[in-house]
Amino acid sequence: MYRITGSSVPVTETNLLEHIGEVIRIHGSVYKIRKMRGFAFVLLRCAKHIYQCVYSEEKAKFPLEVLVEESCVIFQAEVVGEERSRMGAELHLIDVEILSKPYEISQVVINQKEVDTSLATLLDYRPVTLRNEKERAVFRIQNGITDGFRIFFRKYGFTEIHTPKIGSAGAEGGANIFRMDYFGKEAYLAQSPQFYKQMMVGVHERVFEIAPVFRAEKHDTSRHLNEYTSVDVEMGYVTSVETLMETETYMLKSMFSYLKEEYEEELALLKVSLPDLQEIPVIPFAKVKEIVARIRHSEVTDPEDLEPEEEKRICQWVKEKTGSEFVFVTEYPEKKRPFYTMESKEHPELTRSFDLLYQGLEITTGGLRIHNYEEQVAKLQRRGMRPESFASYLMAHRAGLPPHGGMGIGLERLTSQLLGYSNVRRASLFPRDMHRLEP
Amino acid sequence: MYRITGSSVPVTETNLLEHIGEVIRIHGSVYKIRKMRGFAFVLLRCAKHIYQCVYSEEKAKFPLEVLVEESCVIFQAEVVGEERSRMGAELHLIDVEILSKPYEISQVVINQKEVDTSLATLLDYRPVTLRNEKERAVFRIQNGITDGFRIFFRKYGFTEIHTPKIGSAGAEGGANIFRMDYFGKEAYLAQSPQFYKQMMVGVHERVFEIAPVFRAEKHDTSRHLNEYTSVDVEMGYVTSVETLMETETYMLKSMFSYLKEEYEEELALLKVSLPDLQEIPVIPFAKVKEIVARIRHSEVTDPEDLEPEEEKRICQWVKEKTGSEFVFVTEYPEKKRPFYTMESKEHPELTRSFDLLYQGLEITTGGLRIHNYEEQVAKLQRRGMRPESFASYLMAHRAGLPPHGGMGIGLERLTSQLLGYSNVRRASLFPRDMHRLEP
Repeated sequence: MYRITGSSVPVTETNLLEHIGEVIRIHGSVYKIRKMRGFAFVLLRCAKHIYQCVYSEEKAKFPLEVLVEESCVIFQAEVVGEERSRMGAELHLIDVEILSKPYEISQVVINQKEVDTSLATLLDYRPVTLRNEKERAVFRIQNGITDGFRIFFRKYGFTEIHTPKIGSAGAEGGANIFRMDYFGKEAYLAQSPQFYKQMMVGVHERVFEIAPVFRAEKHDTSRHLNEYTSVDVEMGYVTSVETLMETETYMLKSMFSYLKEEYEEELALLKVSLPDLQEIPVIPFAKVKEIVARIRHSEVTDPEDLEPEEEKRICQWVKEKTGSEFVFVTEYPEKKRPFYTMESKEHPELTRSFDLLYQGLEITTGGLRIHNYEEQVAKLQRRGMRPESFASYLMAHRAGLPPHGGMGIGLERLTSQLLGYSNVRRASLFPRDMHRLEP
Repeated sequence: MYRITGSSVPVTETNLLEHIGEVIRIHGSVYKIRKMRGFAFVLLRCAKHIYQCVYSEEKAKFPLEVLVEESCVIFQAEVVGEERSRMGAELHLIDVEILSKPYEISQVVINQKEVDTSLATLLDYRPVTLRNEKERAVFRIQNGITDGFRIFFRKYGFTEIHTPKIGSAGAEGGANIFRMDYFGKEAYLAQSPQFYKQMMVGVHERVFEIAPVFRAEKHDTSRHLNEYTSVDVEMGYVTSVETLMETETYMLKSMFSYLKEEYEEELALLKVSLPDLQEIPVIPFAKVKEIVARIRHSEVTDPEDLEPEEEKRICQWVKEKTGSEFVFVTEYPEKKRPFYTMESKEHPELTRSFDLLYQGLEITTGGLRIHNYEEQVAKLQRRGMRPESFASYLMAHRAGLPPHGGMGIGLERLTSQLLGYSNVRRASLFPRDMHRLEP
């Protein structure tokens, strides 16, 4: 019986600058071979960086021909200082151990600066196209976004929760819900962790969840995914929408400064400059409608909702007036917000809710929730919904809940807007839409 | 147009010891009122702690009767040093602002040391029973487990990924898969992120995902959930099972030391002592069968799989022999492992895989994967499976993958074993089993 001591984990990469003049071993995938006169550049793709290697017949103990792009290797190489290289050093190849070879060279070229192809092809070949340096950087940054948020959450007393994705009732109800058979019972996929995070406010006061949500929306647009990652937040002892907006603004600031600190290389590679977020303007919904109508020289249309075009227009207007790429829109009409949204006391036709728009796109919906049992039951009944269908959700209200509110941030939308993409699919590893179940 | 500056987030709790002699305001839920002669103890449940408050008619400006258990309040109180109190101080109540009241007192008593009821009732009333101090501590610790793992992952170069839970093929295949209609196409819920994490090894080298997985298993046992949280890990440039086991052991050690550091109070409350994890014994599958048969004075039965009873027996044996609560079982028979598992070169009837057993229960399955395209296709064909059905998965193999492997850890099982529960449902906020879709 032998034992595992768990005393080390192999490194993924070596910081070359600490090993100049030394001979090291380094593993990675041969990203690109560029033959020059008398020598060759070989780019080695490692976990986080791409290293420039130099192959010369004088130094190397192997013929260049044994190297194939996308083969996985361990190089033995000398580290040589080289200011013109991105890493400040390059690797002069001495020997190679070939660990694996591709079966064939991918039809899609992935080792140019960009993957030069249509969005459909980019997504169809995701397992391969994600290997492109820029494509993978998108998801490194996305990891930075969630880590940045998590640091904030831990600091401010939020507990992370894992709530079920299969259930017997939908948070928003309606047709936009995936149905399934669950051992002979009808079940639904969660459109959001709304009910559960509210229940959990009664337990931990502040909770968050970063998890998939499912929407059976028949929207075939550049903004919609049928499965996406929702950053859900809920906090107790909150009695104003402003506290929620303050919290989100703080969250975003913390996250951006974490990105700036830890993801400088990826941001530079994608030529992304982080927004200089100082403060976020707040405009009530009705005012937004007015401003946009004025800009368009038209009447106010659809007084209960914002069209995507209106979201774009108001963002442009705010950007021009204040320099901000973000704007909070508040006081949405009651009719278009879910049944758990708290109404304004003075104007019950309006809600104490908000959306956050970023560069023309809604990335967050939030608001105060009804915490009083009788108020919630009355509201359900006014909407013609049956309180009995929400018995386990309402159990929390019956037993007493603090005043509370929260928000949900679409991770892919936030990533996509930050990177300046026109289609949210670019910010999802393996997007799901009406037509796409693969890869 | 006013602006949100995002410059502060309200605190959840105050460290009493820093405010002795001061009058503070603190919000929370009235957990328990205990009337004594001439005064009363009022326990206030805050985000993470429960504070002892003292009500006396001399000091308080309000009658005790306005306080109801599970009402949410803001207390104005003087902080008084008190060594007999768990927090080293208590709160002498001066005034109260009542934020909300429960509609009714819960039928299940939640403010005793334990919720004294059946498991079924405990789960049926989860939105309420989770408010019990011990019940909620379980999920604080669970948050500590995932945070502990994440710290390890960040340190050792793992990138977090979010992979789709709706897809067109199952990783393990078979009957244990939930089906659904996806815009007229048949789709499945992910049994694991197996395919995606392997694809992503070709992109980021090391990846992890902590996300829900779905198993339509008709197992009505204390060990099974039909939806659970899987901590999935995959790493490239790994050519031995030992490296995977080393990594998991290191992960567990890091996580336990994080728990010890950050969750001392919760662990003490639940009377949990963390395992003193130094090293983990490794025993090949065939040897386990032999040892257990010897203990039972019986022949070796079912030579291809371990029964739950055998997992318990071998754990007891290892505990007696070595003191370890963990044991790695290796070299599982090929027939019972999924098609992507790498076989042993010398003994193709055995796999280069492992399970980790903890106190009698399997909490991890892992192993090396087949990375060579032709080898994987041949294996699928040998099993009578159609490689065409796995085209997008195999795209990664065709394009070249490093030797790699990984593991999946069941978060609820790990939590449940650590806390010494006999039923894994105790470690799931809102468990899903064959009979339970609510709450």
